[in-house]
Amino acid sequence: MSILKGAAVIGQSGGPTSVINASAYGCIKTALENENITKVYGALNGILGVIHDNLIDMGAEDPANLALMKQTPSSALGSCRYKLVDSDEDETDYQEILKIFKKYNIRYFFYNGGNDSMDTCNKISKYMMKKGYECRVMGIPKTIDNDLILTDHCPGYASAAKYIATSMMEVYQDAHVYDAGQITVVEVMGRDAGWLTAASALASYKGCGPDLIYCPENDFDINVFTAKVKEIYAKTKKCIVAVSEGIKDKDGNYISSYGSDLAQSKDKFGHSQLGGLASFLAAYLKKETGAKTRGIELSLLQRCAAHCASATDVEESFSAGRAAVEYATQGITDKMVGFKRSYLDGRYVCNVDLMDLSAVANAEKKVPAEWFNETKDGLNQGFIDYALPLIQGDVDMKKEDGLPKFVQLKKVLAKDAQ
Amino acid sequence: MSILKGAAVIGQSGGPTSVINASAYGCIKTALENENITKVYGALNGILGVIHDNLIDMGAEDPANLALMKQTPSSALGSCRYKLVDSDEDETDYQEILKIFKKYNIRYFFYNGGNDSMDTCNKISKYMMKKGYECRVMGIPKTIDNDLILTDHCPGYASAAKYIATSMMEVYQDAHVYDAGQITVVEVMGRDAGWLTAASALASYKGCGPDLIYCPENDFDINVFTAKVKEIYAKTKKCIVAVSEGIKDKDGNYISSYGSDLAQSKDKFGHSQLGGLASFLAAYLKKETGAKTRGIELSLLQRCAAHCASATDVEESFSAGRAAVEYATQGITDKMVGFKRSYLDGRYVCNVDLMDLSAVANAEKKVPAEWFNETKDGLNQGFIDYALPLIQGDVDMKKEDGLPKFVQLKKVLAKDAQ
Repeated sequence: MSILKGAAVIGQSGGPTSVINASAYGCIKTALENENITKVYGALNGILGVIHDNLIDMGAEDPANLALMKQTPSSALGSCRYKLVDSDEDETDYQEILKIFKKYNIRYFFYNGGNDSMDTCNKISKYMMKKGYECRVMGIPKTIDNDLILTDHCPGYASAAKYIATSMMEVYQDAHVYDAGQITVVEVMGRDAGWLTAASALASYKGCGPDLIYCPENDFDINVFTAKVKEIYAKTKKCIVAVSEGIKDKDGNYISSYGSDLAQSKDKFGHSQLGGLASFLAAYLKKETGAKTRGIELSLLQRCAAHCASATDVEESFSAGRAAVEYATQGITDKMVGFKRSYLDGRYVCNVDLMDLSAVANAEKKVPAEWFNETKDGLNQGFIDYALPLIQGDVDMKKEDGLPKFVQLKKVLAKDAQ
Repeated sequence: MSILKGAAVIGQSGGPTSVINASAYGCIKTALENENITKVYGALNGILGVIHDNLIDMGAEDPANLALMKQTPSSALGSCRYKLVDSDEDETDYQEILKIFKKYNIRYFFYNGGNDSMDTCNKISKYMMKKGYECRVMGIPKTIDNDLILTDHCPGYASAAKYIATSMMEVYQDAHVYDAGQITVVEVMGRDAGWLTAASALASYKGCGPDLIYCPENDFDINVFTAKVKEIYAKTKKCIVAVSEGIKDKDGNYISSYGSDLAQSKDKFGHSQLGGLASFLAAYLKKETGAKTRGIELSLLQRCAAHCASATDVEESFSAGRAAVEYATQGITDKMVGFKRSYLDGRYVCNVDLMDLSAVANAEKKVPAEWFNETKDGLNQGFIDYALPLIQGDVDMKKEDGLPKFVQLKKVLAKDAQ
């Protein structure tokens, strides 16, 4: 183990999750306690915070307030969707980053995000190596999409999955209340991977979930779909459908784009009404079946519903952040912290594992084909067995006035202290 | 106190809430334990269950399973939106109801619902009196809309309010994560009364809620609105707006109708079917400001999110159901059970109170004008003081596999046992 003394910086990037701050807090808390880390900085809005010298002093935050990060959704440090170009192409950003690293003697770089963030992390790691600047770089994953490869699952997925399954169970109760017929279409996030939509199968597993589930892993045929809905509706006068926003037909066209015909009708302000996939399918099925239909889009709610987070997810996310610091201070660099699953006497165990940044960056993991049913409109026990352990446990949330208490950082800028 | 022995029936009607079953369970449990009530029936799908002789034997249900009603959203007995015509106009339904009451010796009728349900309750009560059939009739209120008069608040409102405030706080975190600008419009239920939308002010009170809140109590001017949004956006690059689905302009046109030329279909009670306001306003603001905008509709989620229920609401709802039985068996009839608020040493106390059914039926309570701010785009402390006590406490939900456990009734039909 080689000792490296210096400051650490952590940044968050990509779309929010309910638990990304739990990871960041695991990282920040552990770094603040580590004797080789001289100072802990937070980069405001991800890598942009480094490039623009917008680093805040995490040590200046009140520890009790900082601890609220563990239950605060979204990125407390702010996020970005900034993609670094290859340093061979344009070195500007990298030079800026190196300048800031040197300015604050940053020897530890932790980046908390999804696929694109691991790409950023990987590029910075390789650049620093090339320049001979010793800096240990670790990726801490997060993504509700659950689409990072090598890791068993991603921090953030389980809490979104728990919210989706819970909400589906509740919508099921609501949608079955009248004796009149009703068709309900629920749109779930997921452009290319169906993990989130698949989570609605957990509600079906509990006896009150969607009848049909469509993920982007499989071609969507609107005629087959309509026939299925009609068949179920004819039997029970109810039908609940869960669809990924990213479902496509066999020619690769997004089903959501089918709605543009409907959207041609201009409103009185002269612009077309853009509805989402759920409202398109609800309108389509209303026309096809004559039934009362309703489209529901879970929208942002599914990625920030910390009040319904999985305690397992929160603890695992925290431990991923902690492990990143522990490994880095022990000499590890250029890795992403991931999860490996095992079973001990039949009980789910999650261990931290290390993955090569270059292998993870920009690759994508889909729901395995064998976890779909034969007709590709539902999930089988393989998926249930995978997902169920992840959503266990509820968070004992600190509240005030009956509402969650979220972190509010002071954000003392490091450059002002120089 | 006059003793009346006989069977009791309870029905549920109108739109679901998170706690309507808590009221029904309070009623059923108390009735099952009362020595003067010989049998307890549940009417499937409200008054239609009586008319069609679809009564189930609540005593045949497993008590532990039945207790899950207290945490199950929506109406476990099924609901209806059936409006009884005046008996002077057409007596058919009433004759059928009386026939069933006589068939099962029903001497207690409990009806659990909103304004329209209190109207049904009132009509049945008056008809039975006219016919000299002794039957004690009690209304047990529920409505997320909180628009019943005389009662301080309605069971169901607080849980929806808590969900809305919590979700708003979470959406706030999400919407503030990027350094890029963003305008977010959240559409909340409420055709004529803004109680639900007003609840989003609780999030603002906690420092992370909407900047602007629009309720149907006030005329909505899209130009004033747009100017306000632009002003806030110019300062902070963010703007969050909460709107009631039912906001109208000064000429009484629904703002949601601005976005669509579709003829508004009326439901049986003469209400217009609304929807799509959030996406319209998001599209409109995008055009007006050039900013990235997003429309979110809380849809059914806000009325069935039992996982985020207010423990105060659940307990009060239960006690309303229990009180209905207690009063009725003590000789009271033709009343709705409501709530009266008082403060003991500054602490909120909620007492059960009795209201005349005929006074409650078909009247509507709006958010008092003095609780809005001067510019009618926000709520003041008067509303916060009113709403805050109602949302206190979390439900310790029974779960299985990390997901809520909902009641599944056996539904043994009484007519099959005859």
